[in-house]
Amino acid sequence: MGEFELIAWIQAQSKFKPESVVLGPGDDCAVVRQGSQLVLVTTDMLMDGVDFRVGQTPPRLIGRKALAANLSDIAAMAGVPRHAVVSLALPKHNDAGTLAQEIYLGLSDIAAEFHVAIIGGDTNSWPGPLVIAITLTGDVTDRGFVTRSGARPGDWLFVTGPLGGSITGHHLTFTPRVREASDLHRRVTLRAMIDISDGLAADLKHILDASGCGAVLDAAAIPIRPGSNLAGALGDGEDFELLFAVSPEDGHTLQGSGEVWRIGECTDSGLWLSDRGQVQPLAATGWEHQF
Amino acid sequence: MGEFELIAWIQAQSKFKPESVVLGPGDDCAVVRQGSQLVLVTTDMLMDGVDFRVGQTPPRLIGRKALAANLSDIAAMAGVPRHAVVSLALPKHNDAGTLAQEIYLGLSDIAAEFHVAIIGGDTNSWPGPLVIAITLTGDVTDRGFVTRSGARPGDWLFVTGPLGGSITGHHLTFTPRVREASDLHRRVTLRAMIDISDGLAADLKHILDASGCGAVLDAAAIPIRPGSNLAGALGDGEDFELLFAVSPEDGHTLQGSGEVWRIGECTDSGLWLSDRGQVQPLAATGWEHQF
Repeated sequence: MGEFELIAWIQAQSKFKPESVVLGPGDDCAVVRQGSQLVLVTTDMLMDGVDFRVGQTPPRLIGRKALAANLSDIAAMAGVPRHAVVSLALPKHNDAGTLAQEIYLGLSDIAAEFHVAIIGGDTNSWPGPLVIAITLTGDVTDRGFVTRSGARPGDWLFVTGPLGGSITGHHLTFTPRVREASDLHRRVTLRAMIDISDGLAADLKHILDASGCGAVLDAAAIPIRPGSNLAGALGDGEDFELLFAVSPEDGHTLQGSGEVWRIGECTDSGLWLSDRGQVQPLAATGWEHQF
Repeated sequence: MGEFELIAWIQAQSKFKPESVVLGPGDDCAVVRQGSQLVLVTTDMLMDGVDFRVGQTPPRLIGRKALAANLSDIAAMAGVPRHAVVSLALPKHNDAGTLAQEIYLGLSDIAAEFHVAIIGGDTNSWPGPLVIAITLTGDVTDRGFVTRSGARPGDWLFVTGPLGGSITGHHLTFTPRVREASDLHRRVTLRAMIDISDGLAADLKHILDASGCGAVLDAAAIPIRPGSNLAGALGDGEDFELLFAVSPEDGHTLQGSGEVWRIGECTDSGLWLSDRGQVQPLAATGWEHQF
């Protein structure tokens, strides 16, 4: 069973859907109503050997990545990060206390940088490898929140930075695009947005499935991280850049600003790559957990 | 390094404490202000081999326990549970999809029972053992929230049910005392409350440390689960009953109702056990993770 099949099954099971749930599972964040406010909620779990390697990855960067991945989800909804809780399963060995402190210092630094308060957590030890799970809340600005589902045929597609080859280091040191998302949200109408964690093609497919349209990407326009290539940019994942759709009018406003890259546009259906004059189907390859 | 030393260190590191944080780390839940509302936030991480055993524990009970432990934390603040996010690290084997579905069904049942909406999560696979982390939010009623820190010398101490020997099954099937806490919260002034997860003596110590007072327990008055004994009731943990302090006046109101047991009273300092006419110091034994 694939990750997305399992998530679809979980969504179908939901027995209790109160009015306070404005947006349930399936986007970068959930949205709940608390009194007169809308609150974004996201959670990410990172595991040794999958998302980092204890013994190779500096522990401060492990803590940093765990919060940064959550910050990226808040950015994808154009929200303002606020409060985090942190759960740890620490491996039982002599240095586990030091490991925990180093993780926490890395986490605490990026929390302060993005004005996030760490309000609680659950700290455990066990004979297994390190696991860190963070839940982060965010505020919705008066411009509202942005989902994956508002893209329309004809919309222009942009990304906020170069893609591919994140595994060589970027996945540990990336800056979550919280400020960029807020700036964009003020300047234009963001019709759909996602952060690129599974890979450009796979995450674009998430937008297209949610929006009910297609897209064609322009191979020559996709910004590629030095040392990577087109295949890496399309499929590697963990870029943590934002991918978003705007109207052509808003696209003109953004184009040439040097801060975002126009990489294609939305169509009626399908997922396509235009490369040296040829348009071919593009497989939505990318990371998916298998069970 | 012990769990509580590490938590104290983490609390001391906190770099960013906005006004929205009404209560930070160190109680059963954090409390944040969202607009005009106060929101409770708690998180628990459960691990295979520590909190349950995959292959022995029915997967539905694993899911149930993961949410029930969080519900118990909301109960300890006399709150109303609302929204949960669920993160899973699933072991890579052929039945992981089925395991995930069974866990989710158990979780979903108790969520419906307590009117909790599951609003999102993060589902992963890895070569390690099963880990499940849940973050649960709750509403604060118009009677406010209850912390660990309001007990005073002379207060009476109560528990909501028998203690000890939870490992034989109760830790998987307990009913979190959400409704009992709400009822008590309406009837009397709950000065301090905690759920018994580490063990009666250890959790009472948490109340005493937070409140700056002492307590004496009456050995003969402590309700003991059939098959357990006084030592088990004092130290086993995972009872998930509530321990709370009220004024003697409120204590008289509750006594004899048959729903709560008066087990002792608060003193100026120390932790004491009165057993067959002798009062002796009581060690705050109980579960604490070591790093």
